[in-house]
Amino acid sequence: MQLAMVEDRVVPYEELAPVYLDRGTFFGDGVYEVVRSYEGRIFALEEHLARFGRSLREVRIEGVDIADVRERVTMTFNRASIANAKIYFHVTRGAGDRSHTVAADTRPRFFLTVTELAEKPANKERGVAVSTFPDWRWKRCDIKSLNLLANVMAKMDADRKGCAEAILVNEAGEVTEGSSSAIFLVRAGGSEIVTRPLGPDILPSITRAVVERLAERAGVRVVEEVYRPADAARAEEVFLAVTTQDIVPVAAFDGVQIGEGRPGACTRKLIEVFREYVREGE
Amino acid sequence: MQLAMVEDRVVPYEELAPVYLDRGTFFGDGVYEVVRSYEGRIFALEEHLARFGRSLREVRIEGVDIADVRERVTMTFNRASIANAKIYFHVTRGAGDRSHTVAADTRPRFFLTVTELAEKPANKERGVAVSTFPDWRWKRCDIKSLNLLANVMAKMDADRKGCAEAILVNEAGEVTEGSSSAIFLVRAGGSEIVTRPLGPDILPSITRAVVERLAERAGVRVVEEVYRPADAARAEEVFLAVTTQDIVPVAAFDGVQIGEGRPGACTRKLIEVFREYVREGE
Repeated sequence: MQLAMVEDRVVPYEELAPVYLDRGTFFGDGVYEVVRSYEGRIFALEEHLARFGRSLREVRIEGVDIADVRERVTMTFNRASIANAKIYFHVTRGAGDRSHTVAADTRPRFFLTVTELAEKPANKERGVAVSTFPDWRWKRCDIKSLNLLANVMAKMDADRKGCAEAILVNEAGEVTEGSSSAIFLVRAGGSEIVTRPLGPDILPSITRAVVERLAERAGVRVVEEVYRPADAARAEEVFLAVTTQDIVPVAAFDGVQIGEGRPGACTRKLIEVFREYVREGE
Repeated sequence: MQLAMVEDRVVPYEELAPVYLDRGTFFGDGVYEVVRSYEGRIFALEEHLARFGRSLREVRIEGVDIADVRERVTMTFNRASIANAKIYFHVTRGAGDRSHTVAADTRPRFFLTVTELAEKPANKERGVAVSTFPDWRWKRCDIKSLNLLANVMAKMDADRKGCAEAILVNEAGEVTEGSSSAIFLVRAGGSEIVTRPLGPDILPSITRAVVERLAERAGVRVVEEVYRPADAARAEEVFLAVTTQDIVPVAAFDGVQIGEGRPGACTRKLIEVFREYVREGE
């Protein structure tokens, strides 16, 4: 008789709920998004949905209607009535007997949470410390997939060092991005911000794109180029871009103080511009 | 009010069962093993448990007692009474609110299935076709983790081409291993088998290790060296090593017939030696 064991409980295999046989768990065979709301309005939902659609196509998960995802997200967000919410959703390829090969009757599975977003005002006011870790991720980091163990291992390392984020460094010794954020350097007396060009080695971050747009509007030049940890450590300012906290100043990079060790003028200006943009409803 | 949506059903977030908030799904934050039994006896369980322990240590999942895992596996296997069983088990870091950072109260979660193993005698008798795919996996393939989307994408590509397995080729143009198997070439008139040396880019396959041991015992030299798809396509014989099917002859590699297009003498000898080894109870 086919059996399963969940924690320390033996159950007939045939009685397992589909969630226990989800390809999301067996293989990380799924893609996700994290969106936030500011004061009751979801930020940049269409950009996130467009990226979600691309991720689904890249991993060939078929049969997901983005209009239906939009409806589920907005409906649940409205029912939750949380002003500053963190909205997470994923689609996995489906559930069934574990096999790398995809069975013909496999149907995508949807999951969503709308929770209170933990704002971290101290991070914005004082800046955070970051540390570097090898970029062990796969070669398709442009896909926002559930394969995030390398990110978790990097974040755990940062956590042990008392740092808020791990900055990933590839085998060529270049900074790619944070374990769950994009990263920017400020140069040229605050007139220029630098970040890695898009490619298969980083996520096309929505917040990164918004920052680039707003920076240009504010007269700050945007430069996309490859750089190394040493370049970051001697930058005038450094900041992270991440959906849940938009712009987070970096005060220390691998133990080296950045600038005065507190948020610099360019970063503060961009935080302000971002805040206005959000307030105006994009 | 915090909410979740499972498929098309809205539920209070606080009422979600832990399985829905498992880090195994959110991040692939877990490690696993697949073991099989032959005629009522589990094969190479200790080797699999040793590798499992190593995987847990490498990803820093703490508090899992391997003796306890052994007990769960053997107890459930015995209760299932399946002669030729496929035994799958994983441990994830735990469940909780989704955050890359690991909460202090996170406790490992165990899952196991014992199911009928689908024997594929035709594969052994006639051999299988394989095709190549880029090795998009992460840099720690020596860890048997739940991050397997690259493997699934490779297998899906093979499936579309009518092939049974995808052979992964890294950026240097070298064969690493199959999407869920090790791969060997036969050279020198069947007196030599070749496979890639162990390292962070391949899994330390248990079946690969058994094949190496048995080959040497049978007077076949084992060579560990790096090789390319072209070397495989012109090999005298090619075979896969995989827990669920031990040795599987390869009849075609990227559309090129291998040898006579059927299992060669060396591969057949190794299959026979493996069968005897299993019969003797290792």
